Amino acid sequence: MNFCSDNVTGFAPEILDALARANRGAAMPYGQDELTASVERRFAEIFERDVAVFLLATGSSANALALSCLTPPYGAIYSHPLAHVAVDECGAPEFYSGGAKMVGVPGEHGKLTADDLDKALAASGRGVVHHVQAAAISISQATEAGTIYRPAEIAAIAEVARRHGVRLQMDGARFTNALVAQNVGPADLTWRAGVDALSFGASKNGAMAAEAVVFFDKTLAREMPYRRKRAGHLFSKMRFLAAQFDAYLTNDLWLRHARHANEQARRLADGLAKLPGARLLHPVEANEIFIALPEPVIAGLERAGFQFYRWIEEGPGVLRLVCAFNTDPAHVSEFVKTAERLARG
Amino acid sequence: MNFCSDNVTGFAPEILDALARANRGAAMPYGQDELTASVERRFAEIFERDVAVFLLATGSSANALALSCLTPPYGAIYSHPLAHVAVDECGAPEFYSGGAKMVGVPGEHGKLTADDLDKALAASGRGVVHHVQAAAISISQATEAGTIYRPAEIAAIAEVARRHGVRLQMDGARFTNALVAQNVGPADLTWRAGVDALSFGASKNGAMAAEAVVFFDKTLAREMPYRRKRAGHLFSKMRFLAAQFDAYLTNDLWLRHARHANEQARRLADGLAKLPGARLLHPVEANEIFIALPEPVIAGLERAGFQFYRWIEEGPGVLRLVCAFNTDPAHVSEFVKTAERLARG
Amino acid sequence: MNFCSDNVTGFAPEILDALARANRGAAMPYGQDELTASVERRFAEIFERDVAVFLLATGSSANALALSCLTPPYGAIYSHPLAHVAVDECGAPEFYSGGAKMVGVPGEHGKLTADDLDKALAASGRGVVHHVQAAAISISQATEAGTIYRPAEIAAIAEVARRHGVRLQMDGARFTNALVAQNVGPADLTWRAGVDALSFGASKNGAMAAEAVVFFDKTLAREMPYRRKRAGHLFSKMRFLAAQFDAYLTNDLWLRHARHANEQARRLADGLAKLPGARLLHPVEANEIFIALPEPVIAGLERAGFQFYRWIEEGPGVLRLVCAFNTDPAHVSEFVKTAERLARG
Amino acid sequence: MNFCSDNVTGFAPEILDALARANRGAAMPYGQDELTASVERRFAEIFERDVAVFLLATGSSANALALSCLTPPYGAIYSHPLAHVAVDECGAPEFYSGGAKMVGVPGEHGKLTADDLDKALAASGRGVVHHVQAAAISISQATEAGTIYRPAEIAAIAEVARRHGVRLQMDGARFTNALVAQNVGPADLTWRAGVDALSFGASKNGAMAAEAVVFFDKTLAREMPYRRKRAGHLFSKMRFLAAQFDAYLTNDLWLRHARHANEQARRLADGLAKLPGARLLHPVEANEIFIALPEPVIAGLERAGFQFYRWIEEGPGVLRLVCAFNTDPAHVSEFVKTAERLARG
Repeated sequence: MNFCSDNVTGFAPEILDALARANRGAAMPYGQDELTASVERRFAEIFERDVAVFLLATGSSANALALSCLTPPYGAIYSHPLAHVAVDECGAPEFYSGGAKMVGVPGEHGKLTADDLDKALAASGRGVVHHVQAAAISISQATEAGTIYRPAEIAAIAEVARRHGVRLQMDGARFTNALVAQNVGPADLTWRAGVDALSFGASKNGAMAAEAVVFFDKTLAREMPYRRKRAGHLFSKMRFLAAQFDAYLTNDLWLRHARHANEQARRLADGLAKLPGARLLHPVEANEIFIALPEPVIAGLERAGFQFYRWIEEGPGVLRLVCAFNTDPAHVSEFVKTAERLARG
Repeated sequence: MNFCSDNVTGFAPEILDALARANRGAAMPYGQDELTASVERRFAEIFERDVAVFLLATGSSANALALSCLTPPYGAIYSHPLAHVAVDECGAPEFYSGGAKMVGVPGEHGKLTADDLDKALAASGRGVVHHVQAAAISISQATEAGTIYRPAEIAAIAEVARRHGVRLQMDGARFTNALVAQNVGPADLTWRAGVDALSFGASKNGAMAAEAVVFFDKTLAREMPYRRKRAGHLFSKMRFLAAQFDAYLTNDLWLRHARHANEQARRLADGLAKLPGARLLHPVEANEIFIALPEPVIAGLERAGFQFYRWIEEGPGVLRLVCAFNTDPAHVSEFVKTAERLARG
Repeated sequence: MNFCSDNVTGFAPEILDALARANRGAAMPYGQDELTASVERRFAEIFERDVAVFLLATGSSANALALSCLTPPYGAIYSHPLAHVAVDECGAPEFYSGGAKMVGVPGEHGKLTADDLDKALAASGRGVVHHVQAAAISISQATEAGTIYRPAEIAAIAEVARRHGVRLQMDGARFTNALVAQNVGPADLTWRAGVDALSFGASKNGAMAAEAVVFFDKTLAREMPYRRKRAGHLFSKMRFLAAQFDAYLTNDLWLRHARHANEQARRLADGLAKLPGARLLHPVEANEIFIALPEPVIAGLERAGFQFYRWIEEGPGVLRLVCAFNTDPAHVSEFVKTAERLARG
Repeated sequence: MNFCSDNVTGFAPEILDALARANRGAAMPYGQDELTASVERRFAEIFERDVAVFLLATGSSANALALSCLTPPYGAIYSHPLAHVAVDECGAPEFYSGGAKMVGVPGEHGKLTADDLDKALAASGRGVVHHVQAAAISISQATEAGTIYRPAEIAAIAEVARRHGVRLQMDGARFTNALVAQNVGPADLTWRAGVDALSFGASKNGAMAAEAVVFFDKTLAREMPYRRKRAGHLFSKMRFLAAQFDAYLTNDLWLRHARHANEQARRLADGLAKLPGARLLHPVEANEIFIALPEPVIAGLERAGFQFYRWIEEGPGVLRLVCAFNTDPAHVSEFVKTAERLARG
């Protein structure tokens, strides 16, 4: 009963079947195979637009490679100070960009606002040679606080980006969780709202190891093939990344997975939030819950064998609980019941 | 009937089974799982020594990360001019090292000699501030010409490396092919001969996407965890890299695969070499063949549906043919027979 | 009557004479000349200890090169958020280090405190592969707010540095101004207090273009010769950097210059601080003044031909005034008198 | 009597006077002063065209910064294998470009030919993701062998560059020596022949420390201000770089200096070439001589107090002799006379 993260899970049986299917016969390497081409077309369908797609295996490589196409080495990338790209990738954006600077713009519940970005960018020293030059904004969808951006919020940020001549990248490690949380389409959450490049995650949502960078403006992707190869992220047997996406994007598997994860998170949050001493730190909008609980409850849950991370950066007594595509509803029920029992003392 | 490369193949059924097995239940991410730990122990067994192991998914990342731990940014890495690291990784060593220089030392049949390296290193300007500083030697095992290094040859190179204060890395994308081609053990071909770090490839020998960097001197690995993470090569669901190695290193699967590939290459070379106008460019010691054939034979083979690369860098009329872990012996026979028929005119 | 900065001045006549003297005859290049050797010995005398000295021409190169010897590419450098290295060098530390991260730790009056650093370092994720690894602290002496560090403050910071296994670099663009502001010696402000590397500035204090990096632990300087050359900062005619230091460090020229600048700043601050509506933002401890004045006074000073920067990052109505080695005392008097007249309306 | 290099000299008295003149009064920093602006205009006059000019203090920084504006990190820069940028800058182009690769194309007498470049570029793998992408050609004028390129030769190389979509940079550390060696103008040797960017050296020809990067296509200079600052090569007291160029480019000082140096080299070469056992390795076209002499002659010259470098990379018994803007003709006569006496035994 592991609620540590959506990366402690395995992957869906459909993905395994797809790997097995793709394993028949020979295929040309490095993405010259038919399956990769077909997955690329599938992305275009889903996003209702011609796109440049690059399959990868890790989220950090997706973010860092995408950003490296959007910023010069002397550029600055604006993100929430808690963004994965800012704090959890051991400096990957700095490495891939050749030394660009991450600039943190704080905001409630893990979210950037267009206003704060506008102010930060206005004070950034555009054209002043002493300062790094604002080049890109990176937003996480869903955020590191488990919240989501609506199309209008993204559009407002994109408008600020355009006005200041910078690009907008979206870290979509949990893109699908954010998508199914609202009644919109993939295009609405991305290019229609002004996103230039998306890191489209599948690994956290039921794939084995599959991510994609999607450029909505293909001219921005010009350097990407070389940067990917040079970084050692061009897979020779690309078809096995493609196979994962093939299954993932078929029969709504991706959407079903995310709906399930969100729903379990909803149930878990609802159950815990009413306990005495409980306090949700952020709205639960996707599949992550940040909640303060009384220490005896936490300790009791740990003793009972539940696994989760204490999230000390948000204070003592705070947990992060993450539900996944395959979280067993019975485990959620048991978690809530155990917590209730502990809370009663 | 694809002889283009050993990366056009799929992967072995044992690997698929291992993925399926590893897919049960939750596991802690980023290599903190039991399967990864057990694979690391397995490497120690195989190499008869405590080692630091880092699982990866691509050969270029293995080489570039290993080399980045062995050279400062102002360093020089000596390799054969045709080495994969020198010409086929779009500058990955330069990227990962922060701008080190690849220095080519030519040699017959894709091999470096201790003597040539000694001369090159003696003239490299050690301690002269105007010149990049020799830091590492990289050798390919098997080489890009399909030849192999014997332990004595490696030891001679390692002795030169030690004398000049540089490290020795081995690109073992086809390590197992080189291993089974001679009556020695993995330790003999590596640390016992003086190798500091090995890129141990499995992808070209029946895995899906699995490589490992093995440091024989663990102090050299100190920076590796951060460099791997920062490069986006730390897999969250590491167990699926581990699972591939688990199967690969069990019941001699890796050795059996390589023996098969080498044997088919042997058969193919023997069959073709006696054709009129045929000329082997390099000794066939592993699973690659470089052979000049009359143009009508080549054209005829292409028309007959055989796939392979024309290797124009070695001259007109030269083919590279690669056999793999699952090359069908009947395909080899058919290739030879077709060529014989074409050669007769 | 230019109070914009201490870099709008020319240089001292003693420096010019030294250049002329050094210009006689031939001398071996790249620092192999006698004058450079003698200047290096002079640094050892001044700092009462064997040191490794590297002459340079710009302050940004001194800081960036020094820091690049103290941090790996995946390192983090802790500084005040307003430090020159953090905001005024267009990402030089990031470039030179290969992508390290600047982490800002706020503090009053441009100063870091040992306590705040201790907290920040304790939370930095030492050994956690997802996070950049704390590698160095950089403090500015004098600070960007015109304040200074005392030996005890530096020692407290150095103790934190040692405890957390990081190095301490001092940006001494205005080192001499900070030195003469207190009754201590160069060694007290640096290695005796625990500083590992010092950027020792002369350009802002009467030299033409001369800076030095001083390593107090010579083993830290091992990479510096190559890094300097590789960055294009190794001067062939090094003797003309050495000549500047030769004059600068002779007959207390450096100390006299700084005393003059500090004294004029003191006079200017005293004169302005008592004006109605005036408010000093920071203690005036060296040669820089940050002061809020009523807008009509500011506008009147500008009309009267005084040059200075409005320092809007500290709010509207804030000026920065800098005195230099050759600031004419009469100009200071006139500035104050004019301001007084304007303040009376 | 030092013939080691043109960087062992001091600088011309006119340069010293210019520094003294520029030292009057205050001036805005970082190139916002009038003198810098006027020097920029002077460059436009000399090159008969609007240009973007960046003043620097070292030749390596000029080359590396210029090249970094012409190549992506995954680019390749083609030069002669003995080019200064390839072997004498400790990897500066690799550092500044973020890891581009230097590719050597051999040629007689230190020169590249259009044909050889054409072949190398044709085989470079344009658009093939596995290979670094050809981005720039760098030629040295005069070359490291003391030879020069004529406009037609440059134009032929530039035509190859254009055809392959790469840029042409000229390392003009000894540009003026190459210029006065032929009856052409600065424009003929640069943009009219197709050069995109020039490193225009003055340090080796009588300045103290002054170099300039001149972009003939100003759009190529877009990134340069930030790259220069970030590298610590933006001088605060820029006027003292400008002052050197002001004097250098006035009253033909630069041309007179180079003519003198070339003439003394001519005299020296003529005197030595007729000695028994003497052999010039390259045509003497500028101010450098590469000559083989009998060992007793060399040893005798050394004993007589003449300083020069033995140039062992061109074989035993080879000297490099360099004449400078202020080489004393009497020293040349004495060198020749001494050698003659020694050669007679």
